[in-house]
Amino acid sequence: MSIVTVTPNPALDITYTLDNLRPGEVHRVRTTVSRPGGKGLNVARVLHALGVPVVATGLVGGSDGIAIRTQLSHQDVPEALVVSDLVTRRTVTVIDESAGSVTLLNEAGPVVDAAQWRRLHDRVGALLATADALVISGSLPPGITADALAELVRMASAESVPVIADVPGDAIDAVISAGADVIKPNADELRDATGMSDPRRSAEALRERARCVVVASLGEAGILAVTGDGTYAAKLDEPLSGNATGAGDSVVAALAAGLRAGRQWADILRDACALSAATVLAPVAGEYDADAYARLARTVDVRKVGT
Amino acid sequence: MSIVTVTPNPALDITYTLDNLRPGEVHRVRTTVSRPGGKGLNVARVLHALGVPVVATGLVGGSDGIAIRTQLSHQDVPEALVVSDLVTRRTVTVIDESAGSVTLLNEAGPVVDAAQWRRLHDRVGALLATADALVISGSLPPGITADALAELVRMASAESVPVIADVPGDAIDAVISAGADVIKPNADELRDATGMSDPRRSAEALRERARCVVVASLGEAGILAVTGDGTYAAKLDEPLSGNATGAGDSVVAALAAGLRAGRQWADILRDACALSAATVLAPVAGEYDADAYARLARTVDVRKVGT
Repeated sequence: MSIVTVTPNPALDITYTLDNLRPGEVHRVRTTVSRPGGKGLNVARVLHALGVPVVATGLVGGSDGIAIRTQLSHQDVPEALVVSDLVTRRTVTVIDESAGSVTLLNEAGPVVDAAQWRRLHDRVGALLATADALVISGSLPPGITADALAELVRMASAESVPVIADVPGDAIDAVISAGADVIKPNADELRDATGMSDPRRSAEALRERARCVVVASLGEAGILAVTGDGTYAAKLDEPLSGNATGAGDSVVAALAAGLRAGRQWADILRDACALSAATVLAPVAGEYDADAYARLARTVDVRKVGT
Repeated sequence: MSIVTVTPNPALDITYTLDNLRPGEVHRVRTTVSRPGGKGLNVARVLHALGVPVVATGLVGGSDGIAIRTQLSHQDVPEALVVSDLVTRRTVTVIDESAGSVTLLNEAGPVVDAAQWRRLHDRVGALLATADALVISGSLPPGITADALAELVRMASAESVPVIADVPGDAIDAVISAGADVIKPNADELRDATGMSDPRRSAEALRERARCVVVASLGEAGILAVTGDGTYAAKLDEPLSGNATGAGDSVVAALAAGLRAGRQWADILRDACALSAATVLAPVAGEYDADAYARLARTVDVRKVGT
C-alpha cells in the first residue's frame, strides 16, 4: 500500500542563482538545478524522503518529460507517469542572491485533450487498488476543467481511499463536492474559493459546505486547520526567510504521511509546519533541510483555537 | 561540399513572452518557444533557410541535447552533432511585451573535458574533407580554452578550408594567430581583444596583427569591415527595434554564404546588414523575416571608407 500523488500539470523546475536580476539586461547564471516539479511530484519526493511509500503519476511528454522520469528514477522515487505526445512544461525560478529576491516564470503547460486525460484517469484507477491515500496537487493544464479532478475524487471515494487535494481556488468547490477529505488552500485560494478575505471564516465556510478538513497554509502566519476535532493554529516561534517554493507541498506531504499513520491533528500540524519551514530554508525549491525539520518540530506552537 | 559550423557551447534557447517582468514576483509566461541555440547552430539554421548547404556540429548531451537534435531534424538542418554524456545548457530570453525589454538568462554550460573535446575535434576533422568553409561561432564551455579553437583553425587551414570565427574577445588573438580568415567581433569583443575603445582603430589593429578580414557588427551603427580590398561601412537608412538576439549570427551566415559564392565585399556586407536587421525584426530570437530581408537589402547604404 502506498500514497498515490497525481500531478495534473507536471513541470521541469529549473532553479537559477545569479546576482542583480535587471530587466533588459544579459545575465550569466551562476548555478543551475533542474528537477521534477509540479506540486504532486514535489509531494512525492518529500514523502519518499520521509520514508513513506509513494507512487507519483501525471501526464508527461517531450524531452523534459524524459528528464523528469530519469531524475525520479535516479532519486528512487517510484513513478507511474503516463508518457504521452504532449510536451511537458518548465518553470524557471530565479534566485537573486544579492537582492534576496525570488522571481518565478511559469509556463502554462501543454493543452491536454480528452483522450490524453482519460489515460491518466485510468492509470489513477489502476493505482487506487493499492493506495492508502490519493493526493491531487497542482494547477490544471489548459484544456482540463475541475470536473476532471472531481471524477478522480469520486473514483477514490468509491473505493474508500481518502483524498487530499491542493488545487486552484476555482477548483476547490468541485473537489470538495465530489468528496475530497482534506483540502490545503493558501490564503489566495481560500479567497478565490469563497470570496471572503478572512482566512478563518473562509476555511470554516468551506468545511461547512462539504464537511471536509480544511488545512490553510498562510505563509508566515502559519497553518490554520478546521477539522472534525476542532480548529487548530500552528506556527513557528519566529519568522524565517528563504525560497517559499514547495513549502505548501511539504504541508501536503506531512498531511498525507500523518493521516496514513493515523496520528492526531495537533501532531500532524506540528510536523506540517516544521516540514514546510525546513523547505523554505533549503537552497533548492521543493527540497527540505532535514536538520532544520528535526529542530523546528520541537519549537512549533500548536494550539486549539476553536471547537 | 558544404559549410561546416562548429558551436563550442550549444544551448537550448527558450524564448518567453510575458507582461511586466518584475523581480521578486510570480509570472505566468504567455508564450514559449524552444529551439536549438548557440551561435553556430543559429548560423547553420540561417544558412539552411538561405538555401546554402551546411552541416552543424558541436557537443550535446542530456534531454535538451536530444531536443536540439530532434528540432534540427524537424527543420531539415543537417547536423553531425557529437552526443556525449555532458548535459547541454539552456538560455532563457524573456521578452516583456509591455515594457519592450529583452532579458537574457544564460547558463554557463557543462564543463567539457579533454576526451569529450577530442571527439568534437576529430568530428570537425572528418567534416573538413567536404567543407568549403568552417564557421566557429559562440562562447567556450567551461574547461576549454581558446587554444582548442586555435587547433580547429590550424586543422582547417592545413586543408585550405577558409575559417570564419565569431568568438569571445579574449579568444580572438588565438584564432587569428592560428590563421582564421575572417573574424566577426562586436564592439565589446573588439575592445576586449585590443583594449581600444574606437571600433575602427581596433578592427584595423586586428587586421594589422594577422592579415585577417575583420567584420565588426556595431548594432545600430551598422557593420564596419576591414578587408584586403579596403574598409567598408554598411548601415540601414533608419534604425529599427526588436530582439537583437541572433543578429550577429545572421551577419556570420551572410559572410559565409557570400564568401562561398565568391561575391564582392560590398555585396556581402549589404546582405549581412539586411539579414541581420531582418533577424532583429523576427519575433523569435535567431530567426529572420524573409520579406524584411528582401526589402532591407535594397535600402542598405554600403560605402568604402578607407583603402
